[in-house]
Amino acid sequence: MASTVGQVMRRMASTAGQVIRCKAAVAWEAGKPLVIEEVEVAPPQAMEVRLKILFTSLCHTDVYFWEAKGQTPLFPRIFGHEAGAIVESVGDGVTDLKPGDHVLPVFTGECKECRHCKSEESNMCDLLRINTDRGVMLNDGKSRFSIRGQPIYHFVGTSTFSEYTVVHAGCAAKIIRLLLLTKFVSSAVGFLQVGLKQQFNCSCLGATLNVAKPKKGSSVAIFGLGAVGLAAAEGARISGASRIIGVDLNSKRFEEAKKFGVTEFVNPKDHDKPVHEVIAEMTNGGVDRSVECTGSISAMVSAFECVHDGWGVAVLVGVPNKDDAFKTHPMNILNERTLKGTFFGNYKPRSDLPSVVEKYMNKELELEKFITHEVPFSEINKAFEYMLSGASLRCIIRMDA
Amino acid sequence: MASTVGQVMRRMASTAGQVIRCKAAVAWEAGKPLVIEEVEVAPPQAMEVRLKILFTSLCHTDVYFWEAKGQTPLFPRIFGHEAGAIVESVGDGVTDLKPGDHVLPVFTGECKECRHCKSEESNMCDLLRINTDRGVMLNDGKSRFSIRGQPIYHFVGTSTFSEYTVVHAGCAAKIIRLLLLTKFVSSAVGFLQVGLKQQFNCSCLGATLNVAKPKKGSSVAIFGLGAVGLAAAEGARISGASRIIGVDLNSKRFEEAKKFGVTEFVNPKDHDKPVHEVIAEMTNGGVDRSVECTGSISAMVSAFECVHDGWGVAVLVGVPNKDDAFKTHPMNILNERTLKGTFFGNYKPRSDLPSVVEKYMNKELELEKFITHEVPFSEINKAFEYMLSGASLRCIIRMDA
Repeated sequence: MASTVGQVMRRMASTAGQVIRCKAAVAWEAGKPLVIEEVEVAPPQAMEVRLKILFTSLCHTDVYFWEAKGQTPLFPRIFGHEAGAIVESVGDGVTDLKPGDHVLPVFTGECKECRHCKSEESNMCDLLRINTDRGVMLNDGKSRFSIRGQPIYHFVGTSTFSEYTVVHAGCAAKIIRLLLLTKFVSSAVGFLQVGLKQQFNCSCLGATLNVAKPKKGSSVAIFGLGAVGLAAAEGARISGASRIIGVDLNSKRFEEAKKFGVTEFVNPKDHDKPVHEVIAEMTNGGVDRSVECTGSISAMVSAFECVHDGWGVAVLVGVPNKDDAFKTHPMNILNERTLKGTFFGNYKPRSDLPSVVEKYMNKELELEKFITHEVPFSEINKAFEYMLSGASLRCIIRMDA
Repeated sequence: MASTVGQVMRRMASTAGQVIRCKAAVAWEAGKPLVIEEVEVAPPQAMEVRLKILFTSLCHTDVYFWEAKGQTPLFPRIFGHEAGAIVESVGDGVTDLKPGDHVLPVFTGECKECRHCKSEESNMCDLLRINTDRGVMLNDGKSRFSIRGQPIYHFVGTSTFSEYTVVHAGCAAKIIRLLLLTKFVSSAVGFLQVGLKQQFNCSCLGATLNVAKPKKGSSVAIFGLGAVGLAAAEGARISGASRIIGVDLNSKRFEEAKKFGVTEFVNPKDHDKPVHEVIAEMTNGGVDRSVECTGSISAMVSAFECVHDGWGVAVLVGVPNKDDAFKTHPMNILNERTLKGTFFGNYKPRSDLPSVVEKYMNKELELEKFITHEVPFSEINKAFEYMLSGASLRCIIRMDA
C-alpha cells in the first residue's frame, strides 16, 4: 500500500544527516541481472540533495550502459534515471529545495550560473551536462553509495534504482506538490520523464514541440517508432500536425503507433527506392518537419533529405555511434532546409519541467499510454526482460512494493 | 550625360509593341570577350515585361557561366543579372507593373501563386526559381533576343547586358520611384543587388539578417571575404554583432574587410590546427553564428563545426561543386547546433526587395563601398578583367555612356 505524504515525511525527519541503509538494485557486472542489496547512502554534501525514490522506470539508456558494449565499463553501479521522488534532506548551500519537495531527478542538470544556463537558447549546462563516464559526485569525486565500505558507482548523476539516492541540487527539478501520491499520479509523474528523456540525451516530445515546431495542419515524419519516436509523434499530435508519417523497419509497430497520432506508415523494406524519395512522393516534395529517433546514421540522413525544400526542418534526437559520419550533398542544405540537433528536447530541466508536468495535469499530454508494464522493485530484472524482448514501451518500477 | 525620366519615358512610348533594335553585349563563345552587337528585342508576351536597363554590374556568377567550365555550355547568350531598370512596356495579363515603373530584375522570381510563394518561410518559387540551364522564356520556350533571325539565349531570366531586355513579370521587383535618376542613385540601386544576390543563389546580407540572425553583441564568423562575404559582414554589422571574424586564405583581403565591420582575421594557412579549433579557442568554445560564402566544401564543414554548441547557427551561402559531400560527425549536430542553407538570403524578391532599398535610402545599408570600378557599356570586357584579376568587388556598367 502506498504511504501517505505524512508518513514519508515523518520517516525522513529522523534520517537527515545520517547514513541511510536501504535497498538498491546493484549491477555488479555488465549484462548480469541486478542484485537487490542493502546499501549505505551517505548524507548529501554541499549543493547536493538526498532523495527518496517513489517510482522509477527503465530506459534503453540504462540497458545500453548496463550491457557496456563498446564503452568503458564502470561497475559496480546503480543505474536508473527516470523517477519521481521526494527530497529527504539537503546539503549545505541548497536554497531552492527543502525536505518534502517533490522532484524529478534529471540526468542533465541546470546550474543556472554558466553561459549555457544563462543563454535563452541552450540547455547544455557546462557544470551538470550529462556525463555517462563519471560514477562519482562532483563535490568530492566520491560515491555516496557503499556496501560494507566498497563504493558503488553512480549513473548519470541520478541512480534511481535505489530507495534513496543523492543527486546534485541542480539535477532535481522541483515540480508542483501533488496532494495525493497515489500510485497512479506518482507513476505518471515518474513517467513524465519517459516522455521527456527517453534516451540519454533527448526528449523527443521537446524535440518536436520546442525544436521542430510543426505548425497546425503540417506534415511530420517520425523515424523510429519505439517509445522515443512515439513521444515525438505525441508532440506532433499536440502541435496539430495533420499528417504524421511513421517510419520503422518493424511493421508490427505501426498498429500501436496509431494511438500516438501516427496516420501513415512507411517501412523502408517495402520499397526499392530510398525512403526520402518515397516520402517526397507521398507529400508532394517532402514533409514539413521530421524527427529522427533511432540513432541510425542512414535514418538521420533520410530524415534530413525527406523534408521539403524552402521550409523543411529536420531534428536529430537519436544518438549515433561514435564512428558515424553524417553525409549529404550540400545542395540539400542550400535549398533552404534546416538541420538541428537537440539534447533533452531543448528543455532547461529545472526551469521548464514544471510546465510539462502542468501539461500532463491539464490532460494536454497523454502519458499513460506509454506505460505498458509495472513491477515491484524486487522484480526489477523483469523490466529488463520486457525491454530486451521488445514487449514494453515503459515498465514502471514501484519502490514501496 | 544621364537622361531625365521624361526623356526616357518619351522614347519608350513609341516602342511599345514593336521590336526594339539596341545594343547588347553578346557572349558568342565560352570564355571569349563579349561583342557589342545590334540585337532585336521582341515585345513582351503574356506575363512578361520589357525593360530598359540603366545600370548593370558584373557578378562572379556571370563569369562562371561565361567560362562554362563543367556545365552544359549555352551560346550565344546575353549575360547579366544585377541591374536597375525602367519598365518600357508590359505584356498581356501584367497588372502589377506599368511603363515607367522602376524595377530591379531578379534572377529568381516570385509568382505569388505557388506553395513556396504562399509559404511564409520559403522564397524558392516553383515557377520562377533560378534556372541556369534555360536560355528561353517560359511562355513559348523561345528567346526574345535575335540577330538577323538567329536567336540569342537569355541568362537566368534577366540578361541585363543589353540596353533592353525581356523578363517574366514575376522577375521584376518594383521599387520606390527615385525622383532623380542620377548616376549615383541609379548605380546604387543597381548595386543594391550586389548586396543581395552576389552569387547565383544567395544573398549574403539576407543570409545574415534573415537566417543567421545574430543578436546584438554576438560573435559571427564569415568564411570568405570576397564581395559575398563582405555583404554578410555588413549584415552582421547592421545586426550589432560585436565580434566579426573574417576567414580567408588571402591575407590581403583583411585590410579592406575592416571597412565592412570585420574585427578579427583568421587565415587558415597560418595555423597547424583546423580552423574550427582556432575559432573555438578565440571565442571560448565557438562563435554564435557563422556564414559560409566560398562554396568550398571544407569551409562549409568548418563553418558548421566552429559554432558554439547549445545555440550556434551556421548558414551556408556559397554554392558547392556538384560532386561535393557535406560530412560531419552527427554529435556535432546533436549538441544543439543548427545548420541552414539559404537561397537569395531568404528574401522573397518582389515582396521584400523594396524594404531593402528603403534600408539603403535610410543609410542603414552602406552600398557605395562595394563599388570599386565603373565602365561605360562599350567597355564591358574591362569589368571581366577587373573581376578575373581580383581587382574589383563590383564594377558598375553604365548603359547610357
